[in-house]
Amino acid sequence: MSKKILILPGDGIGPEIMEQAVAVLNYLNQADNLGLELEQALVGGAAIDATGGPLPTETLAMAKAADAILFGAIGGPQWESLDMAIRPEKGLLGLRSNLELFGNLRPAILYPQLVEASSLKPDLVSGLDIVIVRELTGGIYFGQPRGIRTLENGERQGFNTYVYSESEIKRIGRLAFETAMKRNKKLCSVDKANVLEVTELWREVITDLGKEYPEVELSHMYVDNAAMQLIRAPKQFDVIVTGNMFGDILSDAAAMLTGSIGMLPSASLDQNSKGMYEPCHGSAPDIAGKGLANPLATLLSAAMMLRYSLNLDAAAVRIEQAVNTVLEQGYRTADIATGTDQKVSTAEMGAAVLNAL
Amino acid sequence: MSKKILILPGDGIGPEIMEQAVAVLNYLNQADNLGLELEQALVGGAAIDATGGPLPTETLAMAKAADAILFGAIGGPQWESLDMAIRPEKGLLGLRSNLELFGNLRPAILYPQLVEASSLKPDLVSGLDIVIVRELTGGIYFGQPRGIRTLENGERQGFNTYVYSESEIKRIGRLAFETAMKRNKKLCSVDKANVLEVTELWREVITDLGKEYPEVELSHMYVDNAAMQLIRAPKQFDVIVTGNMFGDILSDAAAMLTGSIGMLPSASLDQNSKGMYEPCHGSAPDIAGKGLANPLATLLSAAMMLRYSLNLDAAAVRIEQAVNTVLEQGYRTADIATGTDQKVSTAEMGAAVLNAL
Ligand SMILES: CC(C)[C@H](C(=O)O)[C@@H](O)C(=O)O
Ligand SMILES: CC(C)[C@H](C(=O)O)[C@@H](O)C(=O)O
Repeated sequence: MSKKILILPGDGIGPEIMEQAVAVLNYLNQADNLGLELEQALVGGAAIDATGGPLPTETLAMAKAADAILFGAIGGPQWESLDMAIRPEKGLLGLRSNLELFGNLRPAILYPQLVEASSLKPDLVSGLDIVIVRELTGGIYFGQPRGIRTLENGERQGFNTYVYSESEIKRIGRLAFETAMKRNKKLCSVDKANVLEVTELWREVITDLGKEYPEVELSHMYVDNAAMQLIRAPKQFDVIVTGNMFGDILSDAAAMLTGSIGMLPSASLDQNSKGMYEPCHGSAPDIAGKGLANPLATLLSAAMMLRYSLNLDAAAVRIEQAVNTVLEQGYRTADIATGTDQKVSTAEMGAAVLNAL
Repeated sequence: MSKKILILPGDGIGPEIMEQAVAVLNYLNQADNLGLELEQALVGGAAIDATGGPLPTETLAMAKAADAILFGAIGGPQWESLDMAIRPEKGLLGLRSNLELFGNLRPAILYPQLVEASSLKPDLVSGLDIVIVRELTGGIYFGQPRGIRTLENGERQGFNTYVYSESEIKRIGRLAFETAMKRNKKLCSVDKANVLEVTELWREVITDLGKEYPEVELSHMYVDNAAMQLIRAPKQFDVIVTGNMFGDILSDAAAMLTGSIGMLPSASLDQNSKGMYEPCHGSAPDIAGKGLANPLATLLSAAMMLRYSLNLDAAAVRIEQAVNTVLEQGYRTADIATGTDQKVSTAEMGAAVLNAL
């Protein structure tokens, strides 16, 4: 039976990094007879330019029909002045919510070959390997009511609603505990329970759920302290679970600790492990089209996809090993090059991985 | 005319660090005839234990009558299970909102003597000197409606409201632009305008206000990117302005970049420069009562108080110079000691500063 993969290159460096990922997937598909069927569609700014909206009906239908989705990146300055309702981000947010991809796994791993790329002192980050489990379809990103209204005194007021129900918290909590069980059985839940009622409920539900996972050492931390601890001593963490907005901030901070955000993949999963996979970095409009982007995060996202959604573990491992090989061989795109490293282009890095395969 | 200062030691390490600050203020008061009148009151957990609530009417009345307030720290595990409405934090939040202390200035400065204490590589942080201007009486901290309700299907739902009006944004924006004018005329406003309507309004109002400050170079950054950039290259910033919740997270991250959060003061100002001054660090219950805490952040907060609210610039400078002297002399509390540094206690550090004066 064939497996449908929807490829969504998006904007900025999206298309160029995706080109490398598609080449690798096509190669593996033929070499190992994986039965993958690749399709491609428009999303984000590219879709706005072509169809007027960031998430065309056709794209959404194809995403629903697909077994898994590989996503590049979206957004850029040319669309920043658009109304929020039709901006590129709405394409991404629309996919997340329509496909109910509530579980976002964002690993922050330091590759031993790249320890120099981190801003942090080597002993604080060497061996770093943490996962942030971010709730992705709720919280303040999707809460109603929201908008900008005019008050009686004539001035405008902007408002958003940060909201979580018990079942939403339980669902992401379960994914986090399961993730912790497969790793070092250590979970830190991040909230602001000393100020926000919504996260008071969050803490209560996660604590209750913890009783079902007695082997997991559960702790709680306020978000401001978590931001500090990530900088002070990131290796104290193993799995972190948090809501959509805090997860957005902390997962980017954690990724940056490694100094190689161009290396980090992510998975966004629904209840049945159907998923969308994307690099942690954004569309980087400033370097788009110049062949400077690092395609490895997208390749590693493809590996995650093969493993989590398509049950093709062996193929996932092949990609991950090939990435390791090219790092060992010294291939570095600009973002991960330090000192006297020889820099390669996006396409050269892609070719090196194909070679290693 | 005498100037009334209200001393609020609070919980945890609050009392021991405050003791040092009071000794220094008393000394300067006599030596330089400053006309300060120090009073003391209960707040936070200490007030809960004594009166049942975190902000006794008497404390609030004294705070309103005072010319300035010096605040230690609040909170601890023994009060964490209390109802949110009567927890220690409400004492702090109640003071901020009742006194309309909307403007929170949080400097993150790296002391050249302490560059080794930072987690970051020295070249990334040496000379770091940034200020975060955080809105302190609005946003999701105070937004209504808020609470935990039961839905029709029987499950509970927590909710908070993130809300800002144009006038609130303008007020904090003006403080930020004025702060930038006194420094390097560079201001970065942090929001999540690609997702949250309330921060779309924030960006619009700040941009408009920028027209009144043509000399200030204004930029905008999404909060997730700001968290990354603080880690990647913090010296790109000079003044950052943001809302209450993002400010809570980013100011703690920025403080931790210096590696010496025990050194960092803060000011919370109202429209007329009346203010409350407090160290950036919290109540650190784990080390309370052990003489390990660093009193310098509180001493530097006292210096900020003398400068901003009491117009006693010379006295402020004396404290700051004395702090510099003790650092030069090699005095280090545990939090800022590295390598073979000889560690001193809270009281020894306080005595060293008095000596330097
Ligand atoms: C592009 C933006 C809407 C998105 C988010 O905030 O979730 C991005 O920052 C991310 O983390 O995937
Ligand atoms: C104690 C807490 C309520 C407070 C806050 O969140 O504002 C603290 O973290 C701070 O930053 O002053």
